[in-house]
Amino acid sequence: MTPSDVGPPAVQDYYVEDFAHCFGCGRLNADGHHFRTRAAGDETVTDFEPDAAHTALPDSVYGGLIASLLDCHSTGSAAIFALAAEDRAIGAGEVPRFVTGHLAVDYLAPTPLGPLRAVGRLVEATGRKVIVDSELWAAGAVTARAHAVLVRVRTDGGTRMGSDPG
Amino acid sequence: MTPSDVGPPAVQDYYVEDFAHCFGCGRLNADGHHFRTRAAGDETVTDFEPDAAHTALPDSVYGGLIASLLDCHSTGSAAIFALAAEDRAIGAGEVPRFVTGHLAVDYLAPTPLGPLRAVGRLVEATGRKVIVDSELWAAGAVTARAHAVLVRVRTDGGTRMGSDPG
Repeated sequence: MTPSDVGPPAVQDYYVEDFAHCFGCGRLNADGHHFRTRAAGDETVTDFEPDAAHTALPDSVYGGLIASLLDCHSTGSAAIFALAAEDRAIGAGEVPRFVTGHLAVDYLAPTPLGPLRAVGRLVEATGRKVIVDSELWAAGAVTARAHAVLVRVRTDGGTRMGSDPG
Repeated sequence: MTPSDVGPPAVQDYYVEDFAHCFGCGRLNADGHHFRTRAAGDETVTDFEPDAAHTALPDSVYGGLIASLLDCHSTGSAAIFALAAEDRAIGAGEVPRFVTGHLAVDYLAPTPLGPLRAVGRLVEATGRKVIVDSELWAAGAVTARAHAVLVRVRTDGGTRMGSDPG
């Protein structure tokens, strides 16, 4: 399990294998988007450039991809914030894995095709639940905001999803 | 512009061409999902079967696809409800086109791979704004719920997105 590029480590590079098949962010999903989330100071960053086909109106990104990016960015951010709370670096021991219980996206303006950057901030962490707020940047402007509630799952064989009260 | 299959008409079959390129629901997007939304009594229905690659954890659907499906289902539903309010059938004249201002998804349980059905209900319609609540069904259970605020856009050349107060 080594990072697939020479940039700063991404948390998804270290998800345990059974939890690394997500179409959005799983490094082991051959067909997926391979979203990769890294720490940047107190924030988290996921950079992604959509394909030309990922349009809503011509030249703008369709809302489903934006939601997908912000979703996986939020689960990855929750893992990074959980590591930071334990004073651990990405790659130092097992990475915790979170799933989404709630995701809300406000679409503020059309998102132009081109490089996108999601930036996340920790709102709250209580028990197995982490709340992350994010902005989506495109061409120098914030075009969407997300509010996500993430729930930590067991990675030892038992899986517990968003229906679990945490 | 004829429906691409022999089922009941889908509202996306009648979107004006400039607004029919969405990766999620555009009939003119060669690479997209081609979500299709139809009326069913007072409700709306979008059926879709994800590819095997669209996983989160193995055998379950990743949250980004669920958000994408519920997003396009909601915009299509808003168009259907707007037509119904004018007592018009799908295909009778130009179909109104909505974009998403706000989308909130609650992930209640893992969504198994296999046929999915989104079912939508009108909550409120005021001016250019329509609110739609939806359920996602999979294998006989509701696995996610969505709340969406959709805003009608001009289809005559001017586009106005979710940042517009309606």
